[in-house]
Amino acid sequence: MHQSIFAANDRLAERNRGYFKALGLLTLNVVSSPGSGKTALLQKTIERLQPSTRVGVIVGDLETDNDARRLRTTGAPVVQISTGTLCHLDAEMIARAVGQCDANALDMLIIENVGNLVCPSEFDLGEDLRVVLLSVTEGEDKPLKYPPMFRYADAVVITKTDLAPHVDFDRAAALENIRCVSPRAVIFEVSSKSGAGIDAWCDYLTRRGR
Amino acid sequence: MHQSIFAANDRLAERNRGYFKALGLLTLNVVSSPGSGKTALLQKTIERLQPSTRVGVIVGDLETDNDARRLRTTGAPVVQISTGTLCHLDAEMIARAVGQCDANALDMLIIENVGNLVCPSEFDLGEDLRVVLLSVTEGEDKPLKYPPMFRYADAVVITKTDLAPHVDFDRAAALENIRCVSPRAVIFEVSSKSGAGIDAWCDYLTRRGR
Repeated sequence: MHQSIFAANDRLAERNRGYFKALGLLTLNVVSSPGSGKTALLQKTIERLQPSTRVGVIVGDLETDNDARRLRTTGAPVVQISTGTLCHLDAEMIARAVGQCDANALDMLIIENVGNLVCPSEFDLGEDLRVVLLSVTEGEDKPLKYPPMFRYADAVVITKTDLAPHVDFDRAAALENIRCVSPRAVIFEVSSKSGAGIDAWCDYLTRRGR
Repeated sequence: MHQSIFAANDRLAERNRGYFKALGLLTLNVVSSPGSGKTALLQKTIERLQPSTRVGVIVGDLETDNDARRLRTTGAPVVQISTGTLCHLDAEMIARAVGQCDANALDMLIIENVGNLVCPSEFDLGEDLRVVLLSVTEGEDKPLKYPPMFRYADAVVITKTDLAPHVDFDRAAALENIRCVSPRAVIFEVSSKSGAGIDAWCDYLTRRGR
């Protein structure tokens, strides 16, 4: 039963992938634990990329539209998906949400997944890049403890670096653990609060979008 | 299909509950996001409660036995459950794990669930107390965004309070959100680093264990 759910999702994800490709849309699937700073990073990212890159956002949450409201302050179009008790977004939800925005008018589509470091790893959405966030407050060992999520990451963004001195963050151990579990990932270190590292992260997205 | 999985789990959970009751074991199901400080809090808690309270631990993780090794430094017996890709513990896993320790020799059984603020909420383990951790670094709105987990909490423990000044933590908003979603929960505020609040939390457990 699980296998058939995944197989059906994988087919729909490929359809999404073809749709995005035809439109020339760079698509990101942004995943992390709850409270890792996804929304804060996306706010900064969208502000930096606009207006030369036209960004749209799909936000998944069990409940509340807090994140969607925060992201709308950037002026970007935002579609909210409320999952109720469901722990992840799937390809069908994305296809429906894309139908609610003018995808033709976008260069980049950012999907902010439900805050969950386990289940979203099993659901391909048709994205170009899987972006996994890891905040310095969560501890250096998280890639080792949650390998399914980190294994296929295209980018790993270490967030809240401004807090590193307060949590005795072992940067070398974190980088080693990420490199071990996420062999193909580009690694970024950012603070949405101070702005450190945001330029390098946005440059990467701009390059990938061309 | 999902309904029958939950119904089967609920029956096994009741069997666990009866087993724990017969042995006079107080049982905790400790849940939170990854990196909220479950293991650090449990280390402090076990150190404080022993030897007058004999504590055993069951730890669930996708991979690694890092947490089990940290908890064994307290001298408490620890059973590790490796879930692979599974996002939660269930009642059957607990029944099997309990069979691997001398439950007769314990006063309290602490179950450290997989770090996930969504899925473990649907799986009763037969525990007496559901304890939900929320670190100050995750943001005040998490109870509103993850209500299934917070709704049936018996205790909510705000962790890492030493970091509150560095993250502009809005304590009043956090307390209000918890009270709103977790009406029956006792709320604690602790720092495993400084030790603040650990006494009150351990006193609560000792009272509940009698």
